[in-house]
Amino acid sequence: MSDRLADVLAYIDTHLDESLERLFRLVEIESISTDPAYAGRCVEAAEWLADALGAIGFDAAVRPTPGHPMVVGHASGGAGPHALFYGHYDVQPVDPIALWHAAPFEPKIVTAPDGKKQIVGRGTSDDKGQLMTFVEAFRAWKAVTGELPIPVSVMLEGEEESGGKNLVPFMEANRDELKADVAFICDTGMWDKSTPAMTTMLRGLVGEEIIITAASRDLHSGLYGGAARNPIQVLVSILDGLRDETGRVTLPGFYDGVGELPEAIRKQWENTGFDPDAFLGEVGLSVPAGEAGRSVLEQLWARPTCEINGISGGYTGNGFKTVIASKAFAKVSFRLVDKQDPEAIRAAFRDYVRSKIPADCSVEFVPHGGSPGVRLPIDGAALVKTQAALAEEWGKPCLLIGSGGSIPVAGDFARVLGLDALMVGFAHDDDRIHSPNEKYDVASYHGGIRSWARILAALAEGGRS
Amino acid sequence: MSDRLADVLAYIDTHLDESLERLFRLVEIESISTDPAYAGRCVEAAEWLADALGAIGFDAAVRPTPGHPMVVGHASGGAGPHALFYGHYDVQPVDPIALWHAAPFEPKIVTAPDGKKQIVGRGTSDDKGQLMTFVEAFRAWKAVTGELPIPVSVMLEGEEESGGKNLVPFMEANRDELKADVAFICDTGMWDKSTPAMTTMLRGLVGEEIIITAASRDLHSGLYGGAARNPIQVLVSILDGLRDETGRVTLPGFYDGVGELPEAIRKQWENTGFDPDAFLGEVGLSVPAGEAGRSVLEQLWARPTCEINGISGGYTGNGFKTVIASKAFAKVSFRLVDKQDPEAIRAAFRDYVRSKIPADCSVEFVPHGGSPGVRLPIDGAALVKTQAALAEEWGKPCLLIGSGGSIPVAGDFARVLGLDALMVGFAHDDDRIHSPNEKYDVASYHGGIRSWARILAALAEGGRS
Repeated sequence: MSDRLADVLAYIDTHLDESLERLFRLVEIESISTDPAYAGRCVEAAEWLADALGAIGFDAAVRPTPGHPMVVGHASGGAGPHALFYGHYDVQPVDPIALWHAAPFEPKIVTAPDGKKQIVGRGTSDDKGQLMTFVEAFRAWKAVTGELPIPVSVMLEGEEESGGKNLVPFMEANRDELKADVAFICDTGMWDKSTPAMTTMLRGLVGEEIIITAASRDLHSGLYGGAARNPIQVLVSILDGLRDETGRVTLPGFYDGVGELPEAIRKQWENTGFDPDAFLGEVGLSVPAGEAGRSVLEQLWARPTCEINGISGGYTGNGFKTVIASKAFAKVSFRLVDKQDPEAIRAAFRDYVRSKIPADCSVEFVPHGGSPGVRLPIDGAALVKTQAALAEEWGKPCLLIGSGGSIPVAGDFARVLGLDALMVGFAHDDDRIHSPNEKYDVASYHGGIRSWARILAALAEGGRS
Repeated sequence: MSDRLADVLAYIDTHLDESLERLFRLVEIESISTDPAYAGRCVEAAEWLADALGAIGFDAAVRPTPGHPMVVGHASGGAGPHALFYGHYDVQPVDPIALWHAAPFEPKIVTAPDGKKQIVGRGTSDDKGQLMTFVEAFRAWKAVTGELPIPVSVMLEGEEESGGKNLVPFMEANRDELKADVAFICDTGMWDKSTPAMTTMLRGLVGEEIIITAASRDLHSGLYGGAARNPIQVLVSILDGLRDETGRVTLPGFYDGVGELPEAIRKQWENTGFDPDAFLGEVGLSVPAGEAGRSVLEQLWARPTCEINGISGGYTGNGFKTVIASKAFAKVSFRLVDKQDPEAIRAAFRDYVRSKIPADCSVEFVPHGGSPGVRLPIDGAALVKTQAALAEEWGKPCLLIGSGGSIPVAGDFARVLGLDALMVGFAHDDDRIHSPNEKYDVASYHGGIRSWARILAALAEGGRS
């Protein structure tokens, strides 16, 4: 470790209380983005952050959008890749307020039964505490050395919890200004309380609704049953045909672009200590339902899926009605990984469905979104350096993990800015984000600031990558 | 034809206007059984009918039930089988009243564009006009000859349009009194306006609801999709497996007791002039959906079915929700024919479903009724004589047809009284039963009365069969 980094880390340790105080100030601002009554508070949070960045030498400003504003700041630095940092200052509503043990916007340090210190308050983990880890790391570097190890830009959003419709247009309108070499998204978690992790795989999503029409009206199943087509029967046959008995999706070309898991990642996942029985058992299940021969983590993070998210047709009330429905519908989604093409899969799905529609039935398709998966190359210089820096800070190897859900901003960075976004965060599964009594461990906050200080130093090594 | 019968038929012809007047009086009584506001009218209709039967020599009475009353009457007659006649005096509600061209309970004769006379009013076809055909036939026989050709009992119900819960208990409580050699149900139709028909096949029904539970709560399809069991997927796979690609039901033993159609019936059906394209085309369909290699009439009348009458699971509102539901359910029914055993089929269905439920899912079954089909022996003496009498009256062979739906009273006669019920009626497809402007052709009424006069005579020939 360089002397400079050692000094920065020492500074972080001795100034932790002031860092916590600043986080408290930000948490106190009730920036609930989904409720128009708090629009003024959102502006206030943005202004507070622009000021905080300005105070440590950033050229920072509150930038209007048709919704809540963005905060963008830039700071020069030493030789090294230009890094763009993302976080969001808006928070979830606090309902049900009665379940909070203390006022959600009056943050305080609480000692948990296990002796761990926790910062309790709305947004402490999602995402004010997390974004402040990198802001405080910048502050420490500036305070100790007078400059940042690498050039840094910051973009903070105010609509992550309320749809985020203005983020992509803003990025598109400011593409040149936001140009960078690497992006960091700080909105994810550690593997467990002592193990750092980077999320390098996210699944994408294609949603489709299909509505099948058979007869021109509902029919009596006595008078027509046996001769008239039942659209529910057509629908279940189509849906059942989407997966074979090994759990694989049967659409032609569905697995195009799905790479096998690198052996290094597979090994790592085998040694995470993840307990599939416990994971499924917590929701009352016990039999992994995905592709045969794949581990549960692989099924969740690295394999595409086909799910029926909703289905309806005929009589669904109490009792019984001997009806043959005219229409039936289902909502189907595919989780995508790696290089699967959402629109190719949508087209393959529609072709398959059309091929199974009887001559006297019709089908209507309603698209519901489409976004590709994200799978970062695990040998990129920035990723390798970040991974090493995290391992050094936490004294354990940093896991490269996946997430079965999507983090839209990661895809947006790739699509709009051409940037791989490294997802590094310090939240824990028990942080109660979106719920009453949200908290962020002081160890997450402190270790997070130290982690970013190390990452900045690591990226600077060897100069511009 | 005997002179006596010729005289009776002549009497019917010359007294048609009076027969129509009596029907009008009955139709004027607003005996809507489903609406408690009309309970008094139902009693009034029952009393009117008991009086009408009494006036022609029946020992007739209004008989109370926990709901609307029954009317039962008995009359002695010449040597021959004792026949029990069934009809119902209650009618459907008249909504939407605005679509009636005249007051529904002020019956009148209307001349249709084709020159045919129609009796218009609620209940004219279903079933007051029909039941009056046999009452008026009895009257004519009594008027002309002073007696009935055979012993006759009459049972008229007041709850056919509102669930009919009290019919079976009444029959059970009066089993001895209702004993007879043959039963006639007059609540069905002719094949077409010039072709008489007897319904000798009715399908039975088994209804089952299955509710499949996978996880203990709804899950996020990103975080769990690929590893967690989706109960909709389980459900569609189960439902899809119920029928093979030829449209046959796959349950073991399902076709036990299903006899092939007698060759004579098959031939007759081939020559009915039934147009499957027109039948399906009227509801926007064109491809018969039932068992391959079976005619549409066979699919409708003589073959059992499996239908999905309702299905629901997951998110079914507008838009999309990336949810894996905890539960999904379907309502399934089987139409049964011939000697299929409803409870054996229910058991086979449940065994099949249970065999397909993954280890960590559960299934709940809710039974929704079970009744066997009816298939009358087509060589019974009463049936053969009735068929011949109808052919004589209408100048065309009488078709032996089926009905895809169930007429519960036919099964009840068989089960409770051990009686084959011959279904003879004179309604037409265009009678608009249950709809505004219900009508009954004067030709149906007139020909119906004459038909019963002939049937009574035919049954008397050769004495007690």
